[in-house]
Amino acid sequence: MNNPTDSTSHDEHCRVNRLCIEATSAASASISHEIMNILAIINESAGLLEDLSLMAAPDEGIPAERITTTAAAIMKQVSRANQIMKWFNKLAHCGDAPRARTDIAGTIQLVVALANRQAAMKKLSVSTGDLSTAEIESDLLCLVSLLYMVLRRLYETVGTEGEISIAAKPEGSDITVSFTAHHRNEQVNLNSFPNHREKTLAAHLKANFSHNGEALQLTLPPTLPQD
Amino acid sequence: MNNPTDSTSHDEHCRVNRLCIEATSAASASISHEIMNILAIINESAGLLEDLSLMAAPDEGIPAERITTTAAAIMKQVSRANQIMKWFNKLAHCGDAPRARTDIAGTIQLVVALANRQAAMKKLSVSTGDLSTAEIESDLLCLVSLLYMVLRRLYETVGTEGEISIAAKPEGSDITVSFTAHHRNEQVNLNSFPNHREKTLAAHLKANFSHNGEALQLTLPPTLPQD
Repeated sequence: MNNPTDSTSHDEHCRVNRLCIEATSAASASISHEIMNILAIINESAGLLEDLSLMAAPDEGIPAERITTTAAAIMKQVSRANQIMKWFNKLAHCGDAPRARTDIAGTIQLVVALANRQAAMKKLSVSTGDLSTAEIESDLLCLVSLLYMVLRRLYETVGTEGEISIAAKPEGSDITVSFTAHHRNEQVNLNSFPNHREKTLAAHLKANFSHNGEALQLTLPPTLPQD
Repeated sequence: MNNPTDSTSHDEHCRVNRLCIEATSAASASISHEIMNILAIINESAGLLEDLSLMAAPDEGIPAERITTTAAAIMKQVSRANQIMKWFNKLAHCGDAPRARTDIAGTIQLVVALANRQAAMKKLSVSTGDLSTAEIESDLLCLVSLLYMVLRRLYETVGTEGEISIAAKPEGSDITVSFTAHHRNEQVNLNSFPNHREKTLAAHLKANFSHNGEALQLTLPPTLPQD
């Protein structure tokens, strides 16, 4: 906000914080479900081990290969859960400072990881082929919240087994993040983007949404101007 | 805020949202560490199973009791992680509505669970003996954030192996949550409470902090007045 007595920009700023709470809460709720699913799979493997033990003849042991297979299955799930928790930890630290330097590629990868469950549920293929290595200085929590919101709504908009592609490239001194979506080789219309909430967050980031026919584009300044 | 054009109350409201983000981020970061610790323990058990398989003589199996013990250890950790994720999922849903009915006992139990890692690290004993069954209607995310902040700072204030007791009882139509702390049988001075951040959240909840000699008290209205 440029003028601390301007109640409209105060309202906007409040609304930004509220939207960030909503986005991070949605990501947290989703991740807790994902982790509980993984824990259920691990529990099943442990249950299988118990069954093998119970079925073993008194003087015979359990075949080593059965144990090796089950141990490997458990380790695979542990590694999956660990990766999710690492991304989630990154999200938890996004709000540490009101502005921070971040590489746009890492930020997009974070958001894609956070929305991975929704993509998997709709069997979407999400590719992030062409990502700029550029860094930007911005309100990281707000940026992550905006990208997460766009991605979640994009996943809802695109039909099952759709294909989504995310790219980020420099445009002059700005960075443009573009989203394209296809379903059965047909391009998906993204004219419903941005909605009011996405516009609110973009305005706070001094970013602009545009459409260039194929893609929904979000153009971000390299450095968020100081309030 | 009573008057939407009053920039001070706007400021306060923004600050409340920001403090809620900080509190929930701190809880999220802590929980991600706790879950990663549990995953490491599960991985160790799975590694032990692999070792047992490798060490098994070619024609002999692995003794069933070794497997049973390890499977039980894994299940115990899964159950621990599941419980943490259930609490965390509750936290993620606290921001679903700007106001909600909640039982004060459940809210205190949630906050104690979320700060459990910090209590364990300092070997604190935390008891919630006397909790009112009363319900209040409030800004749940703000209430949880405030109680979590108080608890985390209380845990820092009290020495290792200290004892903390939390109670909640009706006082007229209000609910009073009280915190007492002891270290080696000496009462711990809680005069540093509330700090500015805690006061900000309490003001939003129309709640009051007071000291009655022994305890730090937080008095909450049964229903948060509408803005």
